[in-house]
Amino acid sequence: MAEVKLYGWWSSPFTHRIEVALKLKGVEYEFISEDVRNKSPSLLKYNPVLKKIPVLVHNGKPICESLVILEYIDETWEVGPSLLPKDPYERAMVRFWAKLLDEKCFPAMRNAFLSIGEEQEKAKEESTELLKFLEGTLSGNKFFGGDTIGMVDIVANFISYWFIIVQELAGLQVLTKEKFPKLCEWMDEYLNSDIIRENLPHKDKLTAIYQARFLDAAAANAAVAGGGGSPK
Amino acid sequence: MAEVKLYGWWSSPFTHRIEVALKLKGVEYEFISEDVRNKSPSLLKYNPVLKKIPVLVHNGKPICESLVILEYIDETWEVGPSLLPKDPYERAMVRFWAKLLDEKCFPAMRNAFLSIGEEQEKAKEESTELLKFLEGTLSGNKFFGGDTIGMVDIVANFISYWFIIVQELAGLQVLTKEKFPKLCEWMDEYLNSDIIRENLPHKDKLTAIYQARFLDAAAANAAVAGGGGSPK
Repeated sequence: MAEVKLYGWWSSPFTHRIEVALKLKGVEYEFISEDVRNKSPSLLKYNPVLKKIPVLVHNGKPICESLVILEYIDETWEVGPSLLPKDPYERAMVRFWAKLLDEKCFPAMRNAFLSIGEEQEKAKEESTELLKFLEGTLSGNKFFGGDTIGMVDIVANFISYWFIIVQELAGLQVLTKEKFPKLCEWMDEYLNSDIIRENLPHKDKLTAIYQARFLDAAAANAAVAGGGGSPK
Repeated sequence: MAEVKLYGWWSSPFTHRIEVALKLKGVEYEFISEDVRNKSPSLLKYNPVLKKIPVLVHNGKPICESLVILEYIDETWEVGPSLLPKDPYERAMVRFWAKLLDEKCFPAMRNAFLSIGEEQEKAKEESTELLKFLEGTLSGNKFFGGDTIGMVDIVANFISYWFIIVQELAGLQVLTKEKFPKLCEWMDEYLNSDIIRENLPHKDKLTAIYQARFLDAAAANAAVAGGGGSPK
C-alpha cells in the first residue's frame, strides 16, 4: 500500500488545499503537524529550497508547493473526481486562475486585512478588482469547476473561509453579498459540500489565531505611525 | 488550419519561451509585436486581468502567462518533442522548478543586476544559493529535460542568455564556470541546439537595451543615495 504523508499545519489554507484534495480522491494519508517557527529536520530535508509547508511525501518522494501538489494528486490518483478538466484550454484556464489566486489575490487580500491607511485602501481596491474578475468566471456555474469541485475551488479556499473570518475581524466590507452575489453563492455551495464542511478548521480557533495576528499588525502599524520603532 | 497568434515583444525572455516551444513543436504562428509602453486594444482584450505579454491566441481563444502557455502547447500539439515528461512525479518536479525559476530566481537575478549596495549583495547571495540547487538537479544530464530540451530548459532561458549579458554589463561574477561548471555546460548545449541558436534575439541589440536599463537604474540609485529624489 502506498505511503502518503502530508507535512502541514492545521490553520494553513495551503495545507488545507492538500487535505481536501486527498479526501476528495479518497486517499488515506498521515498528517504530520509542522511547527512553522521550529521546522523539523524532515521538513528541511524534503523541502530544502523553500523550507515551507505543505509537503506531500509519496512513497518517500517529496512534492512541494500546493499548486504543484494538487496537479500531482490529480495525475497520480485517477480514482474519484478530477480536479482538473480534460480539455487543454480548460486546463489552461484552471492553471491561470490558480496562479492568479496565489500571486495576486492572496497578497492583496492579506494586505487589505493587515495594512492601514493608503496601503490598505490600495489593497482593498485591488482585491475588489480581482474579485470582480473571479465573479465573472462563475457565470451560472455552481463551482469554478462546473458542477463539481475542482482545483480553482480548492485553491480559492482562502477567499471562501479565511478571508470571511479576517474581514469580520478587521471590519472590512470588501466581499459582500451586495457586491459579489455569485461569489457568495459559490461560497455557500462550497462550504456546505460534504467533504469540505467536515474538514474545515474550527472557526473559533481560526478566529483566535487571526485576531492575535491582527492585533500584532495593528500594534506594529501604530508604532511605525508614531515613530516608536518596533512594538514591545 | 488552426490560427495561432503570439502577442509578444522580441527582447522578452517570457515571449521567447513561447516562440521556442512553438518552433520545437513545428507549429506555425503569427508574431504580433506589442509595445509594452503603449499596449494595443487586442492585448487588453485578451489579457484584461494582467494586461501583459506573452499571450497566445489559438483559434480566437487567449491563453496568458508563459508557464500556463507552455503546458497548453504541450497538451495541444502532441507532435514533436514533449516539453513535460509523462510520469506524474517528474511532471511535478518540472512544475516546481519552473515556478521557482519565475518566483525566486528571476527576481533575485534581476536585483543582482539592477540594485546596489546591501540589496545587491543580498540578491547576489540569494542568486548563488538558488543556482546551487539548480546545478544540483542537472546531475549528469545534458538538459534539465534529460537528453532533450524540456520545459525547465526553456523557462531557464533568462539564465542561459539574458543573465550572461547583464552579468557582463554589471561586472558581476555570479554565474561562472568555476562556481557552476554543470550549469555552464548546460548553457553551451542549450544555446548551441539548432532551434535555440537560430531564434535567439540578437546579442548586440539585447545588450544595448540592457545597457540603457542599467544606466537608468544606476542614475536612480545614485539619486536615491544622494538624497536627490527622482532622476531627471
